[in-house]
Amino acid sequence: MQLNIQGTSFSVEHDGKEVFSYAPGKPLVYVGHGKEDVLMYRGNFRIEDYVDERTPLEVTNLLPTEDGLVATFGWELEMTISINGDLCEIRFLQLNENINRFWFRTTSNTEEHLYGCGEQMSYFDLKGRHFPLWTSEPGVGRDKTTYITWRGDVDGMSGGDYYHTNFPQPTYVSSNKFYVHVQSTAYADFDFRNDAFNELQIWEVPEFIRIEGASSFVELLEKETAFLGRQPELPEWVYNGLIIGAQGGNERSFGILDKSIEAGVKVAGLWCQDWCGKRVTSFGKRLQWDWKFHQEMYPNLPQKIAELHKRGIKFLGYINPYLVKDGALFEEGKKHDVFAKKADGSLYLVDFGEFDCGVIDLTKPEAYQWFKDEVIKKYSIDIGIDGWMADFGEYLPTDDIVLASGKDAMKEHNHWPALWAKCNYDAVSESGKLGEVVYFMRAGGIGSQKYCTLLWAGDQSVDFTRHDGLCTVICAALSSGMIGCGLNHSDIGGYTSLYDNLRTKEVFLRWAEMAAFTPVMRTHEGNRPDTNFQYYDDDDCVKRLARLTGIYTKLAPLMKQLVKENADHGTPVQRPLFLHNEGDARSYTEQFEYLLGEHVLVAPVYTEGATEREVYLPSDGWVHLWTGKEYGKGDCVVPAELGDTPVFYKKGSEVEPLFREIYESFGTK
Amino acid sequence: MQLNIQGTSFSVEHDGKEVFSYAPGKPLVYVGHGKEDVLMYRGNFRIEDYVDERTPLEVTNLLPTEDGLVATFGWELEMTISINGDLCEIRFLQLNENINRFWFRTTSNTEEHLYGCGEQMSYFDLKGRHFPLWTSEPGVGRDKTTYITWRGDVDGMSGGDYYHTNFPQPTYVSSNKFYVHVQSTAYADFDFRNDAFNELQIWEVPEFIRIEGASSFVELLEKETAFLGRQPELPEWVYNGLIIGAQGGNERSFGILDKSIEAGVKVAGLWCQDWCGKRVTSFGKRLQWDWKFHQEMYPNLPQKIAELHKRGIKFLGYINPYLVKDGALFEEGKKHDVFAKKADGSLYLVDFGEFDCGVIDLTKPEAYQWFKDEVIKKYSIDIGIDGWMADFGEYLPTDDIVLASGKDAMKEHNHWPALWAKCNYDAVSESGKLGEVVYFMRAGGIGSQKYCTLLWAGDQSVDFTRHDGLCTVICAALSSGMIGCGLNHSDIGGYTSLYDNLRTKEVFLRWAEMAAFTPVMRTHEGNRPDTNFQYYDDDDCVKRLARLTGIYTKLAPLMKQLVKENADHGTPVQRPLFLHNEGDARSYTEQFEYLLGEHVLVAPVYTEGATEREVYLPSDGWVHLWTGKEYGKGDCVVPAELGDTPVFYKKGSEVEPLFREIYESFGTK
Repeated sequence: MQLNIQGTSFSVEHDGKEVFSYAPGKPLVYVGHGKEDVLMYRGNFRIEDYVDERTPLEVTNLLPTEDGLVATFGWELEMTISINGDLCEIRFLQLNENINRFWFRTTSNTEEHLYGCGEQMSYFDLKGRHFPLWTSEPGVGRDKTTYITWRGDVDGMSGGDYYHTNFPQPTYVSSNKFYVHVQSTAYADFDFRNDAFNELQIWEVPEFIRIEGASSFVELLEKETAFLGRQPELPEWVYNGLIIGAQGGNERSFGILDKSIEAGVKVAGLWCQDWCGKRVTSFGKRLQWDWKFHQEMYPNLPQKIAELHKRGIKFLGYINPYLVKDGALFEEGKKHDVFAKKADGSLYLVDFGEFDCGVIDLTKPEAYQWFKDEVIKKYSIDIGIDGWMADFGEYLPTDDIVLASGKDAMKEHNHWPALWAKCNYDAVSESGKLGEVVYFMRAGGIGSQKYCTLLWAGDQSVDFTRHDGLCTVICAALSSGMIGCGLNHSDIGGYTSLYDNLRTKEVFLRWAEMAAFTPVMRTHEGNRPDTNFQYYDDDDCVKRLARLTGIYTKLAPLMKQLVKENADHGTPVQRPLFLHNEGDARSYTEQFEYLLGEHVLVAPVYTEGATEREVYLPSDGWVHLWTGKEYGKGDCVVPAELGDTPVFYKKGSEVEPLFREIYESFGTK
Repeated sequence: MQLNIQGTSFSVEHDGKEVFSYAPGKPLVYVGHGKEDVLMYRGNFRIEDYVDERTPLEVTNLLPTEDGLVATFGWELEMTISINGDLCEIRFLQLNENINRFWFRTTSNTEEHLYGCGEQMSYFDLKGRHFPLWTSEPGVGRDKTTYITWRGDVDGMSGGDYYHTNFPQPTYVSSNKFYVHVQSTAYADFDFRNDAFNELQIWEVPEFIRIEGASSFVELLEKETAFLGRQPELPEWVYNGLIIGAQGGNERSFGILDKSIEAGVKVAGLWCQDWCGKRVTSFGKRLQWDWKFHQEMYPNLPQKIAELHKRGIKFLGYINPYLVKDGALFEEGKKHDVFAKKADGSLYLVDFGEFDCGVIDLTKPEAYQWFKDEVIKKYSIDIGIDGWMADFGEYLPTDDIVLASGKDAMKEHNHWPALWAKCNYDAVSESGKLGEVVYFMRAGGIGSQKYCTLLWAGDQSVDFTRHDGLCTVICAALSSGMIGCGLNHSDIGGYTSLYDNLRTKEVFLRWAEMAAFTPVMRTHEGNRPDTNFQYYDDDDCVKRLARLTGIYTKLAPLMKQLVKENADHGTPVQRPLFLHNEGDARSYTEQFEYLLGEHVLVAPVYTEGATEREVYLPSDGWVHLWTGKEYGKGDCVVPAELGDTPVFYKKGSEVEPLFREIYESFGTK
């Protein structure tokens, strides 16, 4: 990074490219004042802002320092820039206490591509759009032109849009080989719609902005994750095969497990999200939010788990940071005063969809400890549970809630997922189970990198739609990989079935095909198990799934290596094409294919009725896994019947023997 | 109006109530800079604004004057306030040429009610919402929770919302008995969402703001219309009965006329919108935009008109200020260089829905004159046409259009409807036909008051929906009456039939019932005549319609008097309850009933399947027209079978004899 100062003007460059600059009449920072209007309904938010002041700041005094400068903007703000090699840190001192809106501009042009902003589901390259950053439900349909989205919006504000995500984060990577991180958990909106600049809006003066450059993207991600944190390696048992999502009590769940194993499915674990009991709502089958095993549905669960362990199979459950009002733990929690309150001292109960829950006040040390020790450890870890979906974290209300820390809920809302991740991390770590237990989360924020052992891409619709279907989980993995979460996976077959949208065998199998080439394979029965396709009801599907788990387990050596690279260097398992093809322009815009490490390219089929797929190859020397045919750089079309996921490996690379073996074992010719 | 000055602080009061004020730290005016993004598709607009600066102005110098003050706001703006009795005029001198956004705050509180902002279709009382002011298509459905609106939005940005209107105007009336008028045709957005203030946003520094108070609402409207202008009286022939909308050529149109007359329908005129020919699009039956009579469809039309005149019946046509590319007048217009152009000098053609048209450049004197003389006079007035729908005016594009006047299309867009009105006015006036010819318009703006002989409420859906059905035309009449257009009427039965929404006999008859108590009764076959209910296909309906035209013609003496009051004093024909009931709080919020003059109250049935209606009466001593039963102030429920429109008259008032006569002639008991 290089800082140039001339009078009161200055600019910072990385590798000869301007990162940001200031000159009189060309502002760098705007400050102002706004009043938000926030409406939450079941995790869906309508946020409107009324900005009554917005002022471009003019430098009134500039003082060069040893490693940078201090700029004073009248009585509004003081800004300190420190440069240290490729690192630029910008700190702020707020002089005008009225400021609650802040805008910072970075230099851009139409050639720049931008990635990250958390886990994005619709657009990997962020340029040309703006991205409000607020953790929420991701939306049902997420496309205002679809009937499902419209129905969702009308029924409960739940349709969503392209930017809705459980995991927003004010951090992005520029194709100019630097990342920009804003240290703040306030509401933010990163606006990449302008050609000449990007404008980062934050609803407070942030603690600091950190910009760091590198000479390659691999190095850049390593530096970024050295700062943000990295996900640890996955437990070895994960690679043993599928994690089967099954529900309904011991008999049904273990029955599905046994039937699957008999049919040749390789299994790593059985995941019973309803281990705690179930609750049927108009949305579908949901859970009893009282986090201990259900004595009627899962009698003798600890013993059953021990038996599973003897067979080399793990058991996974489900937890989230809320307790339902009619549950036993809620009563215990009340005694321990663990819930967030309203201003009048009464409990703040949140509607999660026809049932109300208390919110564990994770900012209160005693509440955090109680939930960690007396709930997670006592009722999950201590009975031998090997993992769980650590769900939710997006529902911290902002109206009339009082947190023990005294902190403003508008600033804690986006912080909550990371706090929730850390609570799980501490429980596992203190139990000495790191590297043995895996919990997976959809919500995230700054801090999730270190504290979340695995992401899952949330609740897709059970279909092939552009903004809520299969293809969105590719975007999710690529974007989360740009902000330090290189371990991602998804519900095979999707989750949300509403308004007559039903999962088909095809969508299930296409999803499973793709999942075989991701770190973790896990099924989910969805929100309406009875009316949607389930693999175990269809012998042909079980057979096909068995084959895919065979491929997945064969890939274990590669997958382990990639997961280790992610843990050691922050290089994600699923990588965008440009990561290893910096000189190739097209590689910066492909979001429906990915590299699995350096030598494998996966192009999942994400449309219905496909028998072939067009694939872009960013360089020469690729071998198509299922035909052995060689392809050079550019577009190609390959056959893609069910089961023949378009996968390529680099000829002569270290993975060639492994992929030849996979072809020998699983190829159809 | 009283102006109080203290140091640099000041306030203006009317009748002891603050109208606006300034004090250090409590801004009155904000200025700033923004960049709009305007997308037009067939008259529907998506307008986004990016405000990069917004600054509250502080008075740096205040100079009291003989009739007010001059306040200087640094290098930004100078403001001159002049008080003259109940009138306050605020003029601005823009010092900073960068300013293109302007916000002015008036004082408010939760008790204040606000009306006007042009012709509003959804909400009469504006408090609690904001109203973007930009003339456009009004929307199909106008309610984001309805299927029709969603389909409209998806198919062509056409769904609309509560504030979409053909006739926006930056003028409103406050329940505190003053009006506020902003002299500007730039884009505006009047925000009435805040309790303590109203914020008037205009995309330029306006020429002036005019605020005038009165001691009664009747007086207030008189003052307001003395300034804005007033609609002239309607021709006498209007009161002869129904204006029948019929299409399809001489044979069909005149056939419908004769059949209607034979069945007892009282007829004022025959309106053939397709006098110029027709064009079938996917939307429905539309017209050939070439404004002379169609020789094949309407052979010998001038002679046919003369024959009609002998029978005491008028003939009406249709014109709008565009010419279709494949028409004869387009070719002539090109020769006379009458069309607006693109920056590159080529014609700007606008897509009106599967056909492209040239836009008459009404800012070019030669083009204006050509259209007035060589089109309107020559092909309509001179062949004896007695009136027309002067349609459209909302489609002036703002991208890449160059007007002869050199004016910015962003500022001319809202001006266009009044220019278009004036073009019609001048044609009629110069032909000596004022008071004989009537043209009716849906688009409007500042200036329409004087130049538009009659409003029609635009294109409702053929249904009872809250935001696009029958009830919206009551709101339209009430709100347009607050800004000087007290003559309004509507398409009986509605117009827009899309997405399987079809007109029923009930909706037609309910609409006709209401229309009998408005200045003009006119039917429209709608955009899809063949699949929608038409009165002439149903003998029972013709009979019922005949009765309603009988009621309407009986009302003529009252109607003429009210129309004259509107022309002389700006007191609208259809009046909100509070106009004559200033002390009654409920009267300020009723928008589904209206006063017809001082002594008659009409409460149209606006829901499906009703047999009775709840009515609010603002005072004592009302007689229910159809039962003769007396009702006092408050809510009451009256029978309302088809034909029994809930109508009340004041006992002992001057209208009593007329209404007794109506009861005798048309009552069912």
